Amino acid sequence: MGALLERTLAAIEPADPAAVAAARDRQNHLTKPPGSLGRLEELSVRLAGLAGVCPPPVPEPAAVAVFAADHGVHAQGVSVWPQEVTAQMVANFLASGAAVNVLAAQTGARVVAVDVGVATPLPGEDGDSGILLRRRVRAGTADMTRGPAMTRQEAIRAIEIGIGVAGQLADEGCRCLLTGDMGIANTTASAALIAVFTGARPDDVTGHGAGVDEKTRRHKADVVRGALELHRPEPRDPVGAVAAVGGLEHAALAGFVLGAAARRIPVILDGVIASSAALVAAALAPDALAACVAGHRSAEPGHTVALRHLGLEPLVDLGLRLGEGTGALLALPLLQSAARTLRDMATFDSAGVSGKRT
Amino acid sequence: MGALLERTLAAIEPADPAAVAAARDRQNHLTKPPGSLGRLEELSVRLAGLAGVCPPPVPEPAAVAVFAADHGVHAQGVSVWPQEVTAQMVANFLASGAAVNVLAAQTGARVVAVDVGVATPLPGEDGDSGILLRRRVRAGTADMTRGPAMTRQEAIRAIEIGIGVAGQLADEGCRCLLTGDMGIANTTASAALIAVFTGARPDDVTGHGAGVDEKTRRHKADVVRGALELHRPEPRDPVGAVAAVGGLEHAALAGFVLGAAARRIPVILDGVIASSAALVAAALAPDALAACVAGHRSAEPGHTVALRHLGLEPLVDLGLRLGEGTGALLALPLLQSAARTLRDMATFDSAGVSGKRT
Repeated sequence: MGALLERTLAAIEPADPAAVAAARDRQNHLTKPPGSLGRLEELSVRLAGLAGVCPPPVPEPAAVAVFAADHGVHAQGVSVWPQEVTAQMVANFLASGAAVNVLAAQTGARVVAVDVGVATPLPGEDGDSGILLRRRVRAGTADMTRGPAMTRQEAIRAIEIGIGVAGQLADEGCRCLLTGDMGIANTTASAALIAVFTGARPDDVTGHGAGVDEKTRRHKADVVRGALELHRPEPRDPVGAVAAVGGLEHAALAGFVLGAAARRIPVILDGVIASSAALVAAALAPDALAACVAGHRSAEPGHTVALRHLGLEPLVDLGLRLGEGTGALLALPLLQSAARTLRDMATFDSAGVSGKRT
Repeated sequence: MGALLERTLAAIEPADPAAVAAARDRQNHLTKPPGSLGRLEELSVRLAGLAGVCPPPVPEPAAVAVFAADHGVHAQGVSVWPQEVTAQMVANFLASGAAVNVLAAQTGARVVAVDVGVATPLPGEDGDSGILLRRRVRAGTADMTRGPAMTRQEAIRAIEIGIGVAGQLADEGCRCLLTGDMGIANTTASAALIAVFTGARPDDVTGHGAGVDEKTRRHKADVVRGALELHRPEPRDPVGAVAAVGGLEHAALAGFVLGAAARRIPVILDGVIASSAALVAAALAPDALAACVAGHRSAEPGHTVALRHLGLEPLVDLGLRLGEGTGALLALPLLQSAARTLRDMATFDSAGVSGKRT
């Protein structure tokens, strides 16, 4: 295991019980019927536990890191989209034309694309820009139906890249991290990881992704089943599992979640790719879940299975299945609202409002 | 019927089919799998139909109008909160200490409190301020269990006040209106209106409001049933129904919805109070529904019944039951996201992204 990964895992701690208790108490004194802010109250309590202080800071400014990579399993015909769309969409991110850019602009969140394993060349010069981090571990994974998707060393490198991106964004002042992803065929790798960590049958966690028909979906589930039979990955070896059947963006996203948790910064998970990566992160460090907020419920069936296993309830449920971080961005204002109401509302005493009759 | 109300009803038109078709077509050319923005796509199409242009303008700036009033039925013991809390909470709105202020500040929405029928004095000088409009029709309704809550003339006056507030905010540049409400005991009047317009049994649409126990909830349902038996209000006489068993804020909110629809400006409905008022508005002008967006699903059972009758599906479902406009404010960024993605995303052609294999 890499040194950065080891240090990060050691730094992750559970929620702070004193801050949790203080937040619960404060909620009951704000000028509203107790409990009437619904799940925002519970969210505010989680943010307090993560930050270790009540009221917790409002999670802003925010940044969404879109980890992009390609998948050798694409050769098995699991997607209707050509592989070059991954690189083309990264170019679209850089030109601010994608959904993730539009939604991020609305909330003032920063977008960073991270090439952890795109198969084809990207536009522009070498070196990083403010919007593109070049961290390519390899030009796409190998086909998981013929051998491991990547080596264990490559998986660790990708995880540590994710940790590094979280750390860099935190150092640059971000106080809320959002997961994003781009990679044609990455719902296939997600389904495989979800099957490994939850024990679900491949057919129950394999969906239509970015638009395959039912026949292709069944084929996709067969591909996942075949890969699992070939590698027999074990949940107690999360690095081995992500190396065998995951994607480079899944490994990096797992690291990103761990990096956020180590910094006690909330991380909003986007959809099925992020939740499958969070399964890897939680297997490495269960307390990392204290930092995780489920942004939305995607239309992919594996997403619901993964969220249930993680014990997370999504904030938004609008039938999105786009990825890129779009579902996480829709949830961002809700998370900020939870923190802001706890911090800024008047109390019954301060506002001179009469209480309930007892 | 009042002249302003008549003029407003005559100005309300159905959605524009050409703009609807153009928005549907545009969604299919944006750089994402078709349909992958889920309900945001359908919302963007509705906004186009309402505005009569594609892409429709992003609904901003926004304003939430919090209509405040008291209820004579409070004397029947239907709430655990003393009646003076209505005026105290209006003072809290003016001091920016309430949940509605905190959530509005986050999204940049303006808050306007409108006294249409508070029973007790409000702080400050006579006359309007930027945050308080003094439009008191009467000092609270009469007890609906003993006679009509208000006269037909008072109901029309309250409706026209709501139309006027929508018009004033539109004239001041607001391009998205949000409903808010404050009135101790107003879930009782809401349950009565929902029973009238949907035909539901009072017991099925009467909830725990701002925190009554199950025994009081059953009593509340009995109070509603008694009032309906006394007045026998008819859905085909919406003004008569709101006069008999509604509240002054319900009448004003119905007018506010009609005023928004006449201006072709979207109006985000908050919770059970707004949806019961929207039933009144839709009975007066069914095409007003083209302007209505259901902000959230509240914990009140009548809310779901009313939304089903209106054919509206809420955007947020986080168990809130606070009122004030809080659920509408949580939905505002989602509505803006729907408009912004349709307007600002690149197309496959403009971004040079390959399409699906056919």
